[in-house]
Amino acid sequence: MDISQALYTTRAMRRVKPDPIPDEVMAKLLDAAVRAPSGGNTQKWRFLIVTDQAKKSALQKIYSDGLTELNANQYKSVMDLIQDGDPDDPEVIQAKKTYASGRWLADNLDKVPVLLFAWGKPNGESSIFPALWSLQLAATAEGLGTSLTTLLFKKHTQEVLDILGAPPVGEWVPMAMITIGYPTGTWGVAKRQQPHEVAFQNTWGNPVSWTVPEPLWP
Amino acid sequence: MDISQALYTTRAMRRVKPDPIPDEVMAKLLDAAVRAPSGGNTQKWRFLIVTDQAKKSALQKIYSDGLTELNANQYKSVMDLIQDGDPDDPEVIQAKKTYASGRWLADNLDKVPVLLFAWGKPNGESSIFPALWSLQLAATAEGLGTSLTTLLFKKHTQEVLDILGAPPVGEWVPMAMITIGYPTGTWGVAKRQQPHEVAFQNTWGNPVSWTVPEPLWP
Repeated sequence: MDISQALYTTRAMRRVKPDPIPDEVMAKLLDAAVRAPSGGNTQKWRFLIVTDQAKKSALQKIYSDGLTELNANQYKSVMDLIQDGDPDDPEVIQAKKTYASGRWLADNLDKVPVLLFAWGKPNGESSIFPALWSLQLAATAEGLGTSLTTLLFKKHTQEVLDILGAPPVGEWVPMAMITIGYPTGTWGVAKRQQPHEVAFQNTWGNPVSWTVPEPLWP
Repeated sequence: MDISQALYTTRAMRRVKPDPIPDEVMAKLLDAAVRAPSGGNTQKWRFLIVTDQAKKSALQKIYSDGLTELNANQYKSVMDLIQDGDPDDPEVIQAKKTYASGRWLADNLDKVPVLLFAWGKPNGESSIFPALWSLQLAATAEGLGTSLTTLLFKKHTQEVLDILGAPPVGEWVPMAMITIGYPTGTWGVAKRQQPHEVAFQNTWGNPVSWTVPEPLWP
């Protein structure tokens, strides 16, 4: 797959089939992940591949409760928009789609074939997230859909770590979970604010001298 | 460029030529960045492209002092290894190379054609670093070398923000700087701990059922 196709089409793909992922494919994804650079090339990362049904079911319950709680608090304004907004407003339509896809994942996390957990060192975010994004891009090239979430490490971290048999937060810090599976649909290029709308030149607030009216790929 | 080539060869490339980067190439890099997913698809990011010579010179001084300080403290054990270790030890050789390349960048930051700064929201690391890594992968496909550093935001953050005309840390949080330029050399596949050495199956500490004795690309 061309690098541009991977960069422009890899999006949060939450709805996946329960079909298992072969070991050799998982090996490919992890091999791509560890090629990413890390601060001082320290490679301070650990990955845990969860396929065990009992563990996935236990995690699903925590995740589902966590999403309900998140929607009631941090995302309350989005929930209000979905309930009270103009149903023809593109923003409302998009918010509904995102909500439905997030809810699907929360209700079906136990049916996702692989839940991959990642640990880094304290303040090691700039080292683990490139590796995880490499893994997600490599997954796209393998025909897999992925989504990254930090939800399980917002409130019920210790409970989750107990399920995973992982050490308490300290030397290692749990950073994220990635869901991986064969997708039920396909995705086009994501609609985004265009880059000239979020980029400055030389001084904060000073516009760049170029514009990108449409995505440059395909 | 094939996605695998980009994922396996994109590494911290600090030594670059002073040749300017065309606007249309910068537009491509930023367009790739904004296609990355972000938490709740919030796209809370800002990018600042610094090409101004006076600003780059001011930043170089801060960066150089910062690296000297970092080497004397956080990286002291690595510095001791370089000074006292066996010069034939592969670990010592690698540490010397990394040190030299880091020092080159600190001494020449003002000659790097583009310094790109990125901001996110508080706790938005999982949203900004995929976008930045996409930008670095897209840069590889354009024949550019990049390196990501958070050094300028370790101690002298306000001084740096003043140079950039950026708001104080609050609504927006500076996350990283990426250096961008045409490389003076080429890079092969990075030597890393292999993925089965850093991956577990189902429970922390439980080995995976596969091994990757050699990188799976090329």
